[in-house]
Parts: sequence; structure tokens; C-alpha cells
Amino acid sequence: MKEIKVGLLGFGTIGAGVVKLLKENASLIEEKTGARITLKALADLDISTDRGVDVTGIHLTKNADEILADPEIAVVVELIGGYEPARSFVLKAIAHGKHVVTANKALLAVHGDEIYAAARAQGVEILFEAAVGGGIPVLSAIKGNLAANRFSTVLGIVNGTCNYILTRMTQEGADFAEVLKSAQQMGYAEADPTFDIEGVDTAHKLCLLLSLCFGTRVNLKDIYSEGITSISAEDVNFAKSFGYRIKLLAIGKRDGEQIEARVHPTMIPIDYPLADVHGVFNAIRLTGDFVGPVMFYGRGAGRDATASAVIGDVMDLGRNMEAGISRRCAPLGFLDQMVTEYPIKPIGDVVTKYYIRFQAVDRPGVLARIAGALGASGISIASMVQSARSSDIVPIVIMTHEAREADIRKALAEIDGFDVIREKSTFIRIEDNLT
Amino acid sequence: MKEIKVGLLGFGTIGAGVVKLLKENASLIEEKTGARITLKALADLDISTDRGVDVTGIHLTKNADEILADPEIAVVVELIGGYEPARSFVLKAIAHGKHVVTANKALLAVHGDEIYAAARAQGVEILFEAAVGGGIPVLSAIKGNLAANRFSTVLGIVNGTCNYILTRMTQEGADFAEVLKSAQQMGYAEADPTFDIEGVDTAHKLCLLLSLCFGTRVNLKDIYSEGITSISAEDVNFAKSFGYRIKLLAIGKRDGEQIEARVHPTMIPIDYPLADVHGVFNAIRLTGDFVGPVMFYGRGAGRDATASAVIGDVMDLGRNMEAGISRRCAPLGFLDQMVTEYPIKPIGDVVTKYYIRFQAVDRPGVLARIAGALGASGISIASMVQSARSSDIVPIVIMTHEAREADIRKALAEIDGFDVIREKSTFIRIEDNLT
Repeated sequence: MKEIKVGLLGFGTIGAGVVKLLKENASLIEEKTGARITLKALADLDISTDRGVDVTGIHLTKNADEILADPEIAVVVELIGGYEPARSFVLKAIAHGKHVVTANKALLAVHGDEIYAAARAQGVEILFEAAVGGGIPVLSAIKGNLAANRFSTVLGIVNGTCNYILTRMTQEGADFAEVLKSAQQMGYAEADPTFDIEGVDTAHKLCLLLSLCFGTRVNLKDIYSEGITSISAEDVNFAKSFGYRIKLLAIGKRDGEQIEARVHPTMIPIDYPLADVHGVFNAIRLTGDFVGPVMFYGRGAGRDATASAVIGDVMDLGRNMEAGISRRCAPLGFLDQMVTEYPIKPIGDVVTKYYIRFQAVDRPGVLARIAGALGASGISIASMVQSARSSDIVPIVIMTHEAREADIRKALAEIDGFDVIREKSTFIRIEDNLT
Repeated sequence: MKEIKVGLLGFGTIGAGVVKLLKENASLIEEKTGARITLKALADLDISTDRGVDVTGIHLTKNADEILADPEIAVVVELIGGYEPARSFVLKAIAHGKHVVTANKALLAVHGDEIYAAARAQGVEILFEAAVGGGIPVLSAIKGNLAANRFSTVLGIVNGTCNYILTRMTQEGADFAEVLKSAQQMGYAEADPTFDIEGVDTAHKLCLLLSLCFGTRVNLKDIYSEGITSISAEDVNFAKSFGYRIKLLAIGKRDGEQIEARVHPTMIPIDYPLADVHGVFNAIRLTGDFVGPVMFYGRGAGRDATASAVIGDVMDLGRNMEAGISRRCAPLGFLDQMVTEYPIKPIGDVVTKYYIRFQAVDRPGVLARIAGALGASGISIASMVQSARSSDIVPIVIMTHEAREADIRKALAEIDGFDVIREKSTFIRIEDNLT
């Protein structure tokens, strides 16, 4: 039986999962690939801490070069994360003719073009199922059996930390700061949660989803990103009263030759399957011209689920190696030379429905002034709620029909200048008309 | 550019979808596979009726042999359905060295072994993503990126007709017969709906799911199947009051060296994502030892969604042909020689929770007798509801803790003999403890 030797860079949580999976399911992997996949070596700056997994027979080293230069190693699994040294290691592995499997969305979102080009030049593969949605095999599906579709929309709940926080805010009526603190104590949020709660991680993943769905290169800077830090318990409650839930969504849409690419808190109807994705679970919903809507749901992070995706990719490589081929499918599913670059629509040009909350002095005529200013900007009101008076300042909530974001921003800037408005108005985009 | 010529057997609804997809998305398919996939010929007994799709350039014939014997045709797509002549045509295509793509679950559930063996002997591929869940790429996922997992459970809502009927019964409080009639008028149920509503179609699909998840051959006759014809509006309402919805599920579980394989109406908690799969949509939920629970959701039938899966398979073959290989993955994901045959657990040995409805005379002491008989059979009661009296015969509903099905059946046979029981008691299995 052919033996395929793997080198692992990074012995963190997911690295430990990979070690565990390769050991526990070794016979299963042979039964499916016809090859023995063994972990030959593992590099990490810390190789002395016990990760609770059996490393018998694996060469442990602090020096990544021992893996990158080892001619016996055919596949390098990069689980270091971040930009450097991950980028240099991946490029070096490719230069040495090794296939690469990575879970590193940040790296690919920023340096993907360079890495794909290097892999192409060397005739090696770069696979990254674990980079989006943890164990959910969504990238394989887009490149694989869904490949016959032109996609119009991709929506994803792809950050477990944000979804955990929003789920608890919804269930408990609690405020953001309070839930974040508890999430940090429970290990569901990092000590520095910026990348998660500001939507950066979600934007990285959207970048990859866009590339695979539309065959486009994406400049990360063009993705509009807004996190969940300004979502209040009040907004969550108003959402509920209108029949919506608030989720941080990665949204990609094809609109002719333009792409919409945005990450922001979004109100979705409670009867959408996406609205029932709770806690640290992830889900990705795609719309193809033939398949229609299709949704994938599962654990978006965690040691074992992510290891499942990583080893799924290694087995894919193993099957290719058994067949004596490489790159039967290009990294983005489209032939490299077919990958194009659609311009991304500026956020001001996006048209959607909006939830807007004003904090206004409770005085006759206020509503008329707000409605008048919205109307003057061409914004049509779908419904309105003014809460029962409990203080002199009351929230006024307006749900709009479809409007251009630039018009919304202009109208709000004007309204926020009114003497009767006592806080900066907030708005949340709505997606309730999915095809 | 390489041209891959396809022959299509069966020009029904899905056949028309395949013709449409190959025409409309021809350039996309080239951008992803590097090959031109063309439909050379199409065979159907009726080639004169207009299916509303453009057949320019396609050779139409009533004689399947013109396709099966054409050396230019590399891939045969079988969309005739049923056992014969589909079986003979598929075997003949394989004998002529052609790869086969089919949506025919009945054929594979019954004649799969013969067909897989023939394909293996000829070194050709047999792909059948469209056979389960329509456009949902669940089989590819099980064979592909989820391959590193040992699966413990697979649950599927895989019959759109049943799910449509149960959804309307739930939403409208209507009875089965009434909704079936309307579903037939609207084209959501066949004139002869037996295969759907009796669970036969679902059992066919379960058979394939079991084979791919567990690497096992399954004898269709060993799958316990119960349809939805005896579900009443009353049961649907009781389910709701206990926080459940009723779905027709395909259930597969690995229990040591045995497999549970059963199809029946099942109560699932309303907060399970599966409970929100409405109408003709399908969903399949798998649990792997590493990935944990993962769910796939989408259109389980229909012209375009099914064509997406069929052409997804053809593109998979196209990529293999471009690479000059065949059978890089075996039909069931496991190497053929590794496919085994786990015995299926008899339904009497299945342990689950039960909803039981008795129709009893409203008289003191009745409940005590029922509870006593259940207790004597070792069945423990979790909760009980006796409806307010509206007639002399009242429903008594009991929810049990986990019990062995043989014990339930024995107890019910005894209780149904009581003079105070006025109808055959009904029971519905519950799945509310999913890992």
C-alpha cells in the first residue's frame, strides 16, 4: 500500500485534532483512499507541552525547514494561522513541490493570488476547506457537485463567536458587552476578540466564498465590513417584534458585472433556516441558477470539526496521488486562467431594506419631521413603531422599503441634526427577499 | 479543447432540465472543467412532444442502442427511472465501457451490487448524486470532504411529497386524505402516490445513504418502512402541544456491528433545524465522529435542481477524463473490496421514545389500567395528556421514556384488547436525543 507522508506546521488546537484523527481513523482512511496517510513530522515553537494526543512515531521539531525540505513529505498542512511566517512557509512548501492544505483564511484572503500562482507554476495543489465554516464541506461542494451552477447569492453565518454572542443576546435579552464578557470567560471569545466581533474574520471567509462562487479575485479592502459591537438589546427586541433575528452575515451577490460583498449585522425573518443557526454553529446558504437555494450547516470551528475538513482535503490529495495525478480541479474551481476580477459595488450603491432606530424627544410633530426627511430622500416607509412613553426620549423605529444605502446615510445625517434627535441614529440592513 | 460526448436516456422532466443546463451553462462548464461537454444524443419512446427546451444539434432517437453502442459517447446519463429497462441499459452502457450517471434510486437500491460490480470490472464510473436529495450534494460530501469521519447517524427528509403533505397538515390542521388530494391536484403528488406516501422511495434513498455512510451493502427488504398514511390531524396537534413536529424520516444508525435502518413518521423537537424543513424541501443530517452534526438542505426534486446534481456528476467525470484517469473514488466512497455487510437490527430491538395515542372510553380507572399494562411491559411513562371530554371516547396520549419496540408492540396488543379501548392504538417514534 502506498504511503503518503504528511508534515504538520503548527501544533495548536486544530493541529492536535489532526494528530488525533489520523491516529484514530487510520484504517478508515485506508479503506477509502487505498493509501496509508501518516504524519511524519510536526513543527511548532512549543513542542514540549502535552496536547493530550498521542505523538508516538511523529518527529517533533521547532524547525519548520525540517518539514519543508524533507523530500519524503508530499503534503504540508499549515495550521499556524495569520500572515507570517505562514505565508513564507506555504510558499516554501510549494517551491519544494509539496501540496499544501491550510485552514488559514486570513492568509488566503490577503495573499491568495500569490499562493495560487505559485502552486500553479509548480503543479501542486492548495486545498483549504477548513478555512470557511470549519467542518462544513461547503467549498468542496461549490467546486464539486454544485459546479454546474451560476451562483447569484451566497450568505454565511461563518463566525462562531459572533453567532454565539448574538444568540445569547436574543435568548436572554442581554446587552453586547455583558455577553462578550461571559463568552470570553467560557472560551467562546478570544481575550482580544477584535478580529471576530469587528467582522474581519467573516470578511476573510467571504473573500474565499466569493472567489469560489463567482470565479473572481477579491481585494479584501473592497469588502464592506461592520461588526456586531453596536448591536443593542433594544435592537434585538425590536427585530423580534417585527419577526426577525439579527445575525452577522457574510453577503455576496452577483449583480451583472458587479459583485456585492458586505459583512454586517443583518435582520432575517425568523422562519428562514439561517435564523435557526444558534450558538457556535455556522451555516452557508447559496443560490445557484439550477440548484436553487441550498444550505450547509455544522460546526464552524473547534478541534475535531476542523480536523475533519483538513483530513478530508488530505484524503482528496491522497486519491489524486493514488491515481498519479495532480490539480484535477483548480484551487478556486475555475481554471486559473478563467478567474477574473469583477468590481465590487460600493456600499452606497447597495439597495436593500432597512431597520432604522431614532432616539427622539417625545413631542408632537417629531415623527412627521423624520418621515418628511426620509421621503425627501426617496425613502419609502414600510412600517413604524413608536414605543410607549417611559421617559422623555423614546425610540422610534422605522422599517423601510428597498432603498439605496447612500440615500439612507444622507437622510440620517440630516435627521441626526434635528434638535429633537438625542443620539446618533442606528440602522440595520434587512435580507428578507431571498431567492 | 477536449470534447466529452454525453448520451441521455429518458426525456422526462429531469431530462429536459439536463438539456437546458448543458445549453445555458456550456461556457461555465468549460471554464471549470477545461472540457466541452456536449449532449450528442437523446433516446426516449416519445421524441415528438415539445419539452420546452432547445434540442438543436442533439440526435433524437427512440432506440437506446444508438446511444449505448455509439463509440463516441463516453458518458451515459440514465433518467428513465424504475427497474427495467433502466437496469439493462445501464449494464449495457457499462459493458460498452461508458461511464454512467443516474438519478435512479430504485435501481441502485435493488440492483446496486450488480451494477457496481460491472462498473468495477470495466473500470468505469457510476455516479448518482441526484438519486438522493435532488440537487443537494450530500453523497459527494460523504464520499468527499467528510470522508475522514466514521458516521454514527444519518437522518433524512428525502421525500418532497411526504414533506409537503406533512407541512400542510401542520400548518392547516388538515387531515391526510384532504391534503393528499390537493397535493395531487397541484402536481406535488403523483396520481398513484404509493411509492412516496408508503415510504418506499425514502427507503430506496436510505439504502444509498447507509451504503455511503457505513460502507455496507444493504438488502432493501431489511429496511423497516412505514409511510405517512395513518398520521392524523390529531397526532399533528398533539405533537405540537408537546413541542414536536412530525416528519417522515429516513433513519440510519450504527450500533456496534449492527445498523439501524428505518423509515417512519417521526416526532422531532421544533427547535431542531430538521423541523424547519418545509414543503418540498429536503434535508439530510449526518453525525460524524470528528465533524459532529452537519446538515444539508435544498430542493429535493424538480427539473433544475436535479439537473444540477446530474451535470455536477458529469463534470466530475469530465475532470477525471481531462486528467486521463477513472475511478479515483469508488462508487460508495469505500474501496469496493472494503464494502462489507452489517446486519440490520430488527425493528423489535430498536430502542427509542414513543408517542402513543389510545382512544378510550372516558371512565374512571382507564388510565390506571393502561399505565399498569405499560409498566408491566417495562415501559416507563414520561408524560401523559387526557383531553377534555368532548364525547364518550377521548384520546389519551402517553409519551414514554426509552423503550424497546417489541415491548411497546406487546403492551399495545394487550391494551387494545381492553373493553374500554375503542380503536387500534397508534404510536409514533420520537428522535429528540440526537448527538
